[in-house]
Amino acid sequence: MRIARLGEFNREKPAVIVSDTEAVFIDDVIADWNRVELEAGAYEKVAKLDLSSRPRVKISDFRLGSPVARPTKALCVGLNYAQHAAETGAESPKEPIIFMKAPDTVIGGNDDVIVPPNSEKTDYEVEICVVMKKSALYLKSPAEAKDYILGYTVSQDVSERYWQVERGGQWVKGKSFPTFNPVGPWIVTPDEMPNPENLRLWCTVDGETRQDSNTNDMIFDISYCVWYISQVMELCAGDIINTGTPQGVGMGFKPARYLKGGEKVVTGIEGIGEITNHFKNYKG
Amino acid sequence: MRIARLGEFNREKPAVIVSDTEAVFIDDVIADWNRVELEAGAYEKVAKLDLSSRPRVKISDFRLGSPVARPTKALCVGLNYAQHAAETGAESPKEPIIFMKAPDTVIGGNDDVIVPPNSEKTDYEVEICVVMKKSALYLKSPAEAKDYILGYTVSQDVSERYWQVERGGQWVKGKSFPTFNPVGPWIVTPDEMPNPENLRLWCTVDGETRQDSNTNDMIFDISYCVWYISQVMELCAGDIINTGTPQGVGMGFKPARYLKGGEKVVTGIEGIGEITNHFKNYKG
Repeated sequence: MRIARLGEFNREKPAVIVSDTEAVFIDDVIADWNRVELEAGAYEKVAKLDLSSRPRVKISDFRLGSPVARPTKALCVGLNYAQHAAETGAESPKEPIIFMKAPDTVIGGNDDVIVPPNSEKTDYEVEICVVMKKSALYLKSPAEAKDYILGYTVSQDVSERYWQVERGGQWVKGKSFPTFNPVGPWIVTPDEMPNPENLRLWCTVDGETRQDSNTNDMIFDISYCVWYISQVMELCAGDIINTGTPQGVGMGFKPARYLKGGEKVVTGIEGIGEITNHFKNYKG
Repeated sequence: MRIARLGEFNREKPAVIVSDTEAVFIDDVIADWNRVELEAGAYEKVAKLDLSSRPRVKISDFRLGSPVARPTKALCVGLNYAQHAAETGAESPKEPIIFMKAPDTVIGGNDDVIVPPNSEKTDYEVEICVVMKKSALYLKSPAEAKDYILGYTVSQDVSERYWQVERGGQWVKGKSFPTFNPVGPWIVTPDEMPNPENLRLWCTVDGETRQDSNTNDMIFDISYCVWYISQVMELCAGDIINTGTPQGVGMGFKPARYLKGGEKVVTGIEGIGEITNHFKNYKG
């Protein structure tokens, strides 16, 4: 299944993508793709619908919202691609580095990203994003993790390196500016994505390829990350996990190549799709 | 005003504390003390009610829920008391260290805290907790901050030091176990708390005083912290900020004195009140 939310910001309606160009709304069955509905079995309810009997709408007639509404947590795994760890000059971590973004940074896949006031080091990061289907706490092994995953989507984990790295303490400072987490275009459920750990993923800036790698370069694979995080907190239905970015971020170039506003950033993953963000300067 | 939520977990009703022992429910006026209602002016609506005409209930007949429902973010300021920074062996930070807890760690002030499986370094931290009244982004100066604050409450920022410090990367790992953020007993609004930056605060374990300090030992005061955080993310109505803990945490003793389960921890702040948590071992 391909899970989406279509409509204006904060008025999106839950939908299922049924072809390359078409969707069906299911807002008569569930109120939204969100934590409460997922906990009440939203996925299972929708999976048994006969979607062919429902009217189809054109995807392009609607804004794509974040395919999950108001996640309780937006988690990130840091330095999780071997070649990305190398480009930052960091040693490969011995176990997953976990941090959080403000969950209200999550926006629709094609929404504009606002470069913060006076930012000189805004950077891009393509990531495969896991969306949780149900609560996961103290899982016994990574093998259990897949039962808890609703699906996979494309995440642009926008990062302001000056605040992340040069302002002391923890990374969250550079990760949580408004609009810093476009997610989309939709969530692909595991039955349609048997091997999320071997997918090409890429990011272009104004048409120039900056990141082009494969999820098989991840140091800790998706199941391991979900299991690991569940050892230190309860993952909730609708939570998202940005599982790390491959090499090619702006910070990794010499000299660094950051986003100043005005760029068009396209972020994609094989088998899921692409999202496109126009980066714009903050205007107050 | 003293803002509270009374009732069983996930079925709390919004209330106002009107005496040392009594409250009035206001669930006919606002649905809850939460982000959506605060954004819609919940505080202002309740402030103009004639509470004296409403039936009073005994506080002790009810469980005290977290006085704010489902915060979008639970932020923390690290090493923000001079003597605490010293006891951990860290240098005093040059600017606030910010990190996040999972927001679903927030529980009622007197709820049980669960010591995680196999934890040997669970620790206590009394903190004065700021609850936001409305959205704050890019505030111009610390002097503006107080207009955005709903009030102050007592927070027990439970911390697992092994996961926080010894497992690599960011602190969030040791801060986000279920039940790790009791908050309460209620929120005191600024009109009743003119000087939050000069309040005694304490924490006892089984009757023995472990922390006993004053908010005037904070390196960055409350207004500064709110202003600072607003420079890197949007603070939302209902968000909470744990503003740091004074010296006397278990980690600061030689040898360290951690919680093993079975303890009664009392956490209090002058002018707000006390919360009491029984620490219990995880039973699966």
